Amino acid sequence: MTTLDHVLDLAALPAAEIPASARRIARFSLYDWMVCGLAGVAEPLAVRLRQVIGAEGGHPVAQVFGGPALPARAAALVNGATSHALDYDDTHFGHVGHPSVGIYPAALAVGEAMQASAAAVADAFLLGAEASVRIGMLLGAVHYNRGFHQTATAGAFGATVAAGRLYGLGRAEMRAAIGLCATRASGLKSQFGTMGKPYNAGIAASNGVECAALARAGFTSAEDGLEGPQGFIPTHSDAPVSAGLWDDPPPGRFRFEEVKYKLHACCHGTHAMIEALAAAKAANGLTPAGIAAIRLRTSPRWLKVCDIKAPRSGLEVKFSYVWLAGMVLHGIPTAADTAYTDALARDAALAAFAGKVDVQGDPSVGDMQAEGEIVLTKGRMLPFAHDLAAPIPAAVLEASLRAKGRGLLGDRAETLWAAVAGLDRLSARDLGARLGAA
Amino acid sequence: MTTLDHVLDLAALPAAEIPASARRIARFSLYDWMVCGLAGVAEPLAVRLRQVIGAEGGHPVAQVFGGPALPARAAALVNGATSHALDYDDTHFGHVGHPSVGIYPAALAVGEAMQASAAAVADAFLLGAEASVRIGMLLGAVHYNRGFHQTATAGAFGATVAAGRLYGLGRAEMRAAIGLCATRASGLKSQFGTMGKPYNAGIAASNGVECAALARAGFTSAEDGLEGPQGFIPTHSDAPVSAGLWDDPPPGRFRFEEVKYKLHACCHGTHAMIEALAAAKAANGLTPAGIAAIRLRTSPRWLKVCDIKAPRSGLEVKFSYVWLAGMVLHGIPTAADTAYTDALARDAALAAFAGKVDVQGDPSVGDMQAEGEIVLTKGRMLPFAHDLAAPIPAAVLEASLRAKGRGLLGDRAETLWAAVAGLDRLSARDLGARLGAA
Repeated sequence: MTTLDHVLDLAALPAAEIPASARRIARFSLYDWMVCGLAGVAEPLAVRLRQVIGAEGGHPVAQVFGGPALPARAAALVNGATSHALDYDDTHFGHVGHPSVGIYPAALAVGEAMQASAAAVADAFLLGAEASVRIGMLLGAVHYNRGFHQTATAGAFGATVAAGRLYGLGRAEMRAAIGLCATRASGLKSQFGTMGKPYNAGIAASNGVECAALARAGFTSAEDGLEGPQGFIPTHSDAPVSAGLWDDPPPGRFRFEEVKYKLHACCHGTHAMIEALAAAKAANGLTPAGIAAIRLRTSPRWLKVCDIKAPRSGLEVKFSYVWLAGMVLHGIPTAADTAYTDALARDAALAAFAGKVDVQGDPSVGDMQAEGEIVLTKGRMLPFAHDLAAPIPAAVLEASLRAKGRGLLGDRAETLWAAVAGLDRLSARDLGARLGAA
Repeated sequence: MTTLDHVLDLAALPAAEIPASARRIARFSLYDWMVCGLAGVAEPLAVRLRQVIGAEGGHPVAQVFGGPALPARAAALVNGATSHALDYDDTHFGHVGHPSVGIYPAALAVGEAMQASAAAVADAFLLGAEASVRIGMLLGAVHYNRGFHQTATAGAFGATVAAGRLYGLGRAEMRAAIGLCATRASGLKSQFGTMGKPYNAGIAASNGVECAALARAGFTSAEDGLEGPQGFIPTHSDAPVSAGLWDDPPPGRFRFEEVKYKLHACCHGTHAMIEALAAAKAANGLTPAGIAAIRLRTSPRWLKVCDIKAPRSGLEVKFSYVWLAGMVLHGIPTAADTAYTDALARDAALAAFAGKVDVQGDPSVGDMQAEGEIVLTKGRMLPFAHDLAAPIPAAVLEASLRAKGRGLLGDRAETLWAAVAGLDRLSARDLGARLGAA
């Protein structure tokens, strides 16, 4: 079986065969995605995008975060970018990308247009996300390192699958939709640090809606847009990783379940350290004054990303191990985006504490791991370690996500949580209505 | 100077500095593009696209071929695909692509939205096309051979420049628009033979409008989306061809002026042979009965494309040297798409004549050339040759393009020609109005 065959099977998987564990995670992602989208509505790029795309007008079938309803493709574009504006959404490390921001906007917009149930939206998202994660893994590190952004590229295929399922595409139509996506998908990492990065998520989502809609209307395309001659994979990766890719196919384990949530409003590369230090602090009642030194070992790849020694702004604090370590030990919450003020970068106590923190790259430490020792002033040495890949019990994850939501949105987050918890009683339009009202 | 600097200069070139020779060709392309678009309105893909995109609605600021007015981005998408539906539009062999179908739809749609003059639309097209041709040359054969379609990829940058000029972008905004295009541009050759190929032209045009509109609203992007780190060129070509690329920059010669028009509704690889045989026939009063054999030498690359020995359909006749040679000698017009019926593939006289035609690949013969000998039954041998790169006097080109237009559209083509001839008196909206009415 080709990858395309697997993806077509996945797209058509009966709802009854979707594993409950994967469905639960997809709903956590739905809540987290809506929280990120609502928290992003005032970001300049979101405002500008609503202005440009909103000015086009059109039949208002799908709700936009903080804005009016728009046609499905337009809503997907705006919602993708808006929900990625804070860069606080979920991450899948195997896929190397952010599944929800590229795929949920397509699923919800088409779900609203087709008057689907909210549960059907979440299921379509999940199957699209699973396809996207596998395609991202197939494109591999070569794709990412060459300069492509899986969130946008692999994400577009996930958005196509999700949109196509909600449009009710047959197998031949879904094949055409994926073929069209092969020629439509794009997205580069050179956008990082600019509004182009959140735009990439919107690109994925809008491409998915457009390609699925064209296939639904009878558009034809390449037989195998993924791995066929001059398909997306051979043109966009020099070394696709197909070995074992589908060894654990549905209805077995969904690789999407490995998705991780950002619980701190800073670079994902710092999260393992934050979790490890927070646990050590809680377990040992540590105070900043009692600490002589912290020796952190992290993956060498993060040193280029989040090891700013003397941050000059709140934004740079998000990419500073030494500052963030001090925030944890001083009990400054790292979850709310509003914590990262420019004043924080000038805080004398944090600057002094930063001098105690030594950061070393260690190739034996994985991307999702952190480890090291805390040396107490009394001489004792406390080892610390955390692996973001370690499973989190659902109840703990729920509590953490709800705390993150409250930090960003206040009480409104609890209303959102109640909606997601009662998803089986809602329509896609009920869900969409939560995006608009302030 | 970087390529981006050159492109930004080009985008801002004062109208007074645009060479008259290049402007004349841009207007030939405008006429030819409108002819192709109007001739394509009933093609299934054009009908389906109008249905899908038209259903979105929106403010009707830009006219669609054969359809209602739509928002600018949507009109660009529909018009790009519609005008490439017959694959009868212009080609630039250096750029390896079709400049008009990806760029004119963006220029016209934004020109209408901004209430620009028709002349400003043609100038914006020309500067966008020049940028696109150079970027296509820079991406090089490696890009094309890897599987990318310059019409869509380089075309999107041209559409961005054209749309951005008409939106009145400043230099920094234009830089951002090109940065956004770097992450938005896409298009694969694996779509050839499907509706995905014309879609690629629409992709280029709609990406140009979207990226220019976002930059106009203040979107930020990569500093140098073209050649900067992980920009479009390094991510999409292994061997960019920068040597000498801008040695003849504007206001000197425009490379766009090398654009070629299809004057026969068949594969471009057969056109040099058709021109050569038609000239030999006219000069020597040849008849099919007087010919014992034709020995054709062509570029080996065309043998895989248009050397079908026994075509089974009208479509396959378009890719058959031996059949097309017979059509020329029998005086069957090759310009009208309607000539290529399935009955033609079963024509006994053509089948018999095909047996007289020998086709050989010859590496010394270029892509745009054909040569060989006609052996007469009386024993005489007539050499023939044609090079599509040879300049055509403007009057001859005008006559040929108008004949092509009449073949496709009847008398309506002459009304269109009059509009383009009087372009300096028209607004973009006057021009747009020619697209809708039947």
